[in-house]
Amino acid sequence: MESEFLGWLRTRLPASPWLRLGPGDDAAVLRLGEAREAPADVAPADVIVTTDLLTHGVDFRVGSDDPRRIGRKALAVNLSDLAAMAAIPRAALFSVALPRHGALELAQALYEGILPLAEQFQVAIAGGDTNTWDGGLVICVTAMGVTGPGGVLKRSGALPGDDILVTGPLGGSILGHQFDFQPRVQEALQLMQRYELHAGLDCSDGLARDIARLCEASGCGAEIDLARVPIADDAKMLSRQQANGVTPLEHALHDGEDFELILAVAPEEATRMLADRSLTTPLARIGRFVAEPGLWQVAASGQRKPLSPKGWEH
Amino acid sequence: MESEFLGWLRTRLPASPWLRLGPGDDAAVLRLGEAREAPADVAPADVIVTTDLLTHGVDFRVGSDDPRRIGRKALAVNLSDLAAMAAIPRAALFSVALPRHGALELAQALYEGILPLAEQFQVAIAGGDTNTWDGGLVICVTAMGVTGPGGVLKRSGALPGDDILVTGPLGGSILGHQFDFQPRVQEALQLMQRYELHAGLDCSDGLARDIARLCEASGCGAEIDLARVPIADDAKMLSRQQANGVTPLEHALHDGEDFELILAVAPEEATRMLADRSLTTPLARIGRFVAEPGLWQVAASGQRKPLSPKGWEH
Repeated sequence: MESEFLGWLRTRLPASPWLRLGPGDDAAVLRLGEAREAPADVAPADVIVTTDLLTHGVDFRVGSDDPRRIGRKALAVNLSDLAAMAAIPRAALFSVALPRHGALELAQALYEGILPLAEQFQVAIAGGDTNTWDGGLVICVTAMGVTGPGGVLKRSGALPGDDILVTGPLGGSILGHQFDFQPRVQEALQLMQRYELHAGLDCSDGLARDIARLCEASGCGAEIDLARVPIADDAKMLSRQQANGVTPLEHALHDGEDFELILAVAPEEATRMLADRSLTTPLARIGRFVAEPGLWQVAASGQRKPLSPKGWEH
Repeated sequence: MESEFLGWLRTRLPASPWLRLGPGDDAAVLRLGEAREAPADVAPADVIVTTDLLTHGVDFRVGSDDPRRIGRKALAVNLSDLAAMAAIPRAALFSVALPRHGALELAQALYEGILPLAEQFQVAIAGGDTNTWDGGLVICVTAMGVTGPGGVLKRSGALPGDDILVTGPLGGSILGHQFDFQPRVQEALQLMQRYELHAGLDCSDGLARDIARLCEASGCGAEIDLARVPIADDAKMLSRQQANGVTPLEHALHDGEDFELILAVAPEEATRMLADRSLTTPLARIGRFVAEPGLWQVAASGQRKPLSPKGWEH
């Protein structure tokens, strides 16, 4: 539904002098100040802003998931979107629709998960809106940041021939990683400052689907080397537990909520990055962008066939 | 629930170098840029940000309310919060949780109400998050603006002896004004630039409750002259229709969703404002702030007794 709706919406949105990027990337880039407010040689600071709405039954389950983990996740997914822009987080707003029964206790527990993560990333809780209603829990977070020293990382800009890098193992996040992941804020800032990244986004809806999105924004295609996709231990465990024939690799390709960074980098630059032992997060080179539109899977044998995203669509 | 929760939360929020005002006012004021990014003689632009979450059954009813009016309201209440800060609106983000059945049509209809209002106030739609779920419609809007030429209007700052002014008639908004009101953005900017306003907020939860909030933020009390409260025609009609003994004046004091401005102004200044025929909105002087804490109603006879807010608490 969302992609169809966004296609409809984009034809109706007028241009705006305040909007430098978006909608359509992980976050929007706004230049809110009047040009006249600053001398010509001072660039007004850009604001990078993103919002995510999480609902009971889709993103978490009240009753079975610890509300502290739910609150943490609501902030973390927004920080991951800021990481995908290589932005420095600054502030967040939290709005909730709480079921009437036990609303106060639930709101407090959500914040007990939010506050430590906010402190870790020096994010100010700037406000919010607390409501009760006759429905299930809904949380909406808006996070704001500023441009990092290396500039803004966009989805557009991947070039045919660029390598595809990811920052960590993928799949099986439903076993816990969907709540406990570390938003790749510092990693994105560090990589954006040290290396020439052509494009990037965070892997939230499945590796295949998110690479397809990066391709769409960049006007290219991509080949994924199946043998190089780093598979999380949870993907293997989930495959064993469910015993439904979904392989660990398929979990890694399609599960979603990994919140690792997917990056487009020229091959020589990728080689330098892979050799950089000072990075705190493992990088894996899992394929390349190609001129031909479409998404392709390449087996260890070299056999190449189309890959259809099966990832999560909200 | 909300006020109890906010009391709990405020004791747990650490100070932040980015947060110049908030939470606790109609919107937060953020200074996001690093000091080092601008020369010492250039003030970094502040960002004024607010968020409101609206739910089915509380703020609107899907099925009986036109979704275009629902969408418009979701943006308008946020613009009213920016008006309450005398801010210039710049951008908004829209997140929705949509019932699965008819989700696309509903999302489109919401936007058909949002877009004309966004255009009227030159607000860029900077992004959002569109979700479907097994619950009722929830809309969360975050609106961002910049400081107007007259500066920021806060809830704190009312002085004993100040007059209380309101920008329009009150009460009965449930008959339609709750959807069709004009956010007082231009009025706030104009008044803030021309006159010395000590404090202000928008009347969203009932005149009595919102004046009590302004008193709390300013550390004072207030007397309302009952005979001077401007009563909306809808308050009179609602009183007749419901025939439950609630008078038009009680509707004006307690109904909420008027979205008029409540201002604290020195008496001489108030007199000048009331004589200003270039203002597009009628102003009414309805009472005064006093040193004694509490909220008081003053009858035409001069009799003074406590006034308890009965307005809406989310």
